[in-house]
Amino acid sequence: MYDQRSAAIQLAESQRHQTLADLKELVKIPSISTSQENYQDMLKAANWIAAYLSKIGMKNVQLLPTAGNPAVYGEAILDSSYPTVLIYGHYDVQPPDPLELWKSDPFDPVQDGDLLFGRGTSDMKGQILACIAAVDATLKTGGLKVNIKFIVEGEEEIGSPNLASAIRAHKDLLACDFVLNPDTGMVGENIPAITYGLRGLSYFEIKVTGPDHDLHSGLFGGIVHNPAQALAEVIAAMHDENGRVTLPGFYDDVRVLDEKERAELSRLPVSDDDFLRQTGAPALWGEKGFTPVERLGARPTLEVHGLYSGFIGEGQKTVLPSYAIAKISSRLVPNQDHEKVYQQLLAFLQEKMPPTVKWEAKKLSGGAPLLINPDQPATIAFAHALETAFQVKPVFKLEGGSVPVTTDLQEILGVQSILTGFGLPEDNIHSPNERLHLPTFYKGIDTIVHFLYNIG
Amino acid sequence: MYDQRSAAIQLAESQRHQTLADLKELVKIPSISTSQENYQDMLKAANWIAAYLSKIGMKNVQLLPTAGNPAVYGEAILDSSYPTVLIYGHYDVQPPDPLELWKSDPFDPVQDGDLLFGRGTSDMKGQILACIAAVDATLKTGGLKVNIKFIVEGEEEIGSPNLASAIRAHKDLLACDFVLNPDTGMVGENIPAITYGLRGLSYFEIKVTGPDHDLHSGLFGGIVHNPAQALAEVIAAMHDENGRVTLPGFYDDVRVLDEKERAELSRLPVSDDDFLRQTGAPALWGEKGFTPVERLGARPTLEVHGLYSGFIGEGQKTVLPSYAIAKISSRLVPNQDHEKVYQQLLAFLQEKMPPTVKWEAKKLSGGAPLLINPDQPATIAFAHALETAFQVKPVFKLEGGSVPVTTDLQEILGVQSILTGFGLPEDNIHSPNERLHLPTFYKGIDTIVHFLYNIG
Repeated sequence: MYDQRSAAIQLAESQRHQTLADLKELVKIPSISTSQENYQDMLKAANWIAAYLSKIGMKNVQLLPTAGNPAVYGEAILDSSYPTVLIYGHYDVQPPDPLELWKSDPFDPVQDGDLLFGRGTSDMKGQILACIAAVDATLKTGGLKVNIKFIVEGEEEIGSPNLASAIRAHKDLLACDFVLNPDTGMVGENIPAITYGLRGLSYFEIKVTGPDHDLHSGLFGGIVHNPAQALAEVIAAMHDENGRVTLPGFYDDVRVLDEKERAELSRLPVSDDDFLRQTGAPALWGEKGFTPVERLGARPTLEVHGLYSGFIGEGQKTVLPSYAIAKISSRLVPNQDHEKVYQQLLAFLQEKMPPTVKWEAKKLSGGAPLLINPDQPATIAFAHALETAFQVKPVFKLEGGSVPVTTDLQEILGVQSILTGFGLPEDNIHSPNERLHLPTFYKGIDTIVHFLYNIG
Repeated sequence: MYDQRSAAIQLAESQRHQTLADLKELVKIPSISTSQENYQDMLKAANWIAAYLSKIGMKNVQLLPTAGNPAVYGEAILDSSYPTVLIYGHYDVQPPDPLELWKSDPFDPVQDGDLLFGRGTSDMKGQILACIAAVDATLKTGGLKVNIKFIVEGEEEIGSPNLASAIRAHKDLLACDFVLNPDTGMVGENIPAITYGLRGLSYFEIKVTGPDHDLHSGLFGGIVHNPAQALAEVIAAMHDENGRVTLPGFYDDVRVLDEKERAELSRLPVSDDDFLRQTGAPALWGEKGFTPVERLGARPTLEVHGLYSGFIGEGQKTVLPSYAIAKISSRLVPNQDHEKVYQQLLAFLQEKMPPTVKWEAKKLSGGAPLLINPDQPATIAFAHALETAFQVKPVFKLEGGSVPVTTDLQEILGVQSILTGFGLPEDNIHSPNERLHLPTFYKGIDTIVHFLYNIG
């Protein structure tokens, strides 16, 4: 029997050299979405991908306009009775700053042994090309029982501000049965992972005002409540001695981890020492009764992102400041609601703020937490593909951050995502000397080939 | 009997028009000590005062060079057996910013009824000219039994950084029995005051470091101690529920107010409403068991002057900051020591800072608190002079701020100061539209005439 799967794997392998050359070409386009100056580069990158999709035989290839950078669409509809996978990616990249810390030009990729250095090699131009290379090999080989669609946006690194409305405007075009999103990564080399939960976010700014103008601390210190002190008192009260958040009702809706899930999470090969090395903190800290992995993925947190009051220059000034500001957010887990947590914050402030100061709080943004059923057939098919390519069972993990596109796709298209990817923790994404580990990249291509044959 | 005192009062009165014209001339010189650009103006003002002292008959007039702006010296030694008063002043002024809030040119004085508007009219070119006018009238009239020296410095508004070494270098020239310093003010129109205590200062900067670089709060929030939160916790712990400072031993050396002194302080015609109006705070706050006037003058305090951590721009960034900084000072009262209070802070931080963060604290500056014996003959002579000129007993008050020159003069020359002055709280010193209340200014001249005749 003619084994199309093996043939596609062999074809992809024989094309690796060209795939790598193509990736280098794409990395050379500085598609930095946060910079207005690079707008022409955004269009260049979008058109490059569109042309690439056409070249491998995708149909109906087009740029979907948005209020910002366009998204690229392409499809291979083999049979309307087949299930459809929508492969998501983003062609924009982080700015390369600080430039002086790069050992090579971020937009002139350099290969050094198994590593390819350059901005976007791992996040996520490499991931996009792994998908396209796999689709190319399988389409050329034939025998697929799945339809394939691509959407590659250009604003992920600035928070995908226009993606939801683009998805809504092209709901029929993007209709699918599930999404493959290779924008989350591996746990380590040879430890493939599927992320099944993401935390949500409720972001606040709090302003405490004492006197209506800055005062001289000698002339007025001791008779009015210093707003910086009042703010510190309230922030200090937001956690108890067990590291738990004290907003009223904060834990009421938090999903309880069962023993099976805790056992699965404990399999993650990450130690306290790993976290200490990654953060440089003198010790770990957090909610008592939960492991660091559980705290990161399955428990909500409250963090101070910014504090400002009074005089923060060199030297000294004896000002009694008029006001103090804090930026604070809470990372949310299922089934918390970001608006409800905002109301809990307001109730907390109402109770704790003393009458000796005035205060206001506003919510700057909110995003829902997400939990993906890991038992759906497409996810199982992907897990098997990972096991075949890497010769090891993948781990299922909860991630602490947010991937807003996942929520948008679930809400608008009614489909779940497979969150995975072939980036490694040491790839320096968002940092100088970003790099792609080529052996893992090639296993990634193999994984997607297997996945496409596993479906249908 | 020829009443020289009355004659001098009459002479000063007949010269008022000229005194006011001279003051306007001095105000026109923009002697802003904080601005390098105004260095020529500093010299111009110093020379103007030197010439003025010579004109009224002072001898040995000279500029005392310092590492910064020179100080002006002049003397009238009538008899070596007489006591000597050293009159202190400063010819430098605050910058006029924000300029757009001035209703007239700050350096082109404008008279409007009883008020003279211009930078330095009240703080303290007006005070200097009141002293010189009084000395002029008494020297011309004769009959004094006191020697008079002037020292007028040019760096008070920038903290008198070079005055102590100038006093040390000219210790013999400046030798005196007491100092008259008219740089503190009245409590209100027709409420003359003598300040007999000033608070000291111990100023610190605290830095708390958590992770060794900024982290993504989604990827790491919940496993390390946020340094902004840790700092807030420690600042919150620096006061107890009664508004008392919790540094260990903080109150051990604090002078206890006796009932007589409390009764005297309670005479000060300042109400809670006055403080609320001056500060714009929604309520008063402070150490329980003491009145606002007592808290401001006789009790030590601890104030946060500045807070900084992480992201404080517009909008949101989900950073888990690497560090947080606070600028904090303690206002000290007799007999606290600023170095001892720094050691108390270190002991407090040692005990309270959790092992999940690193920290450092440094002392940026320290100044001793000061208490002046209000029963010394020169002070009594001045109190009587105030009562004669204003027809009301002066109040004795404690001031919350610091006047470092007082400490310098006490330490180097071994003499006490009479801290007083004829500025009013509503004179807008250090603010736009600074002004001098002319009727009070003229009563100030009379007061000094009486004072000079009261001595000896």
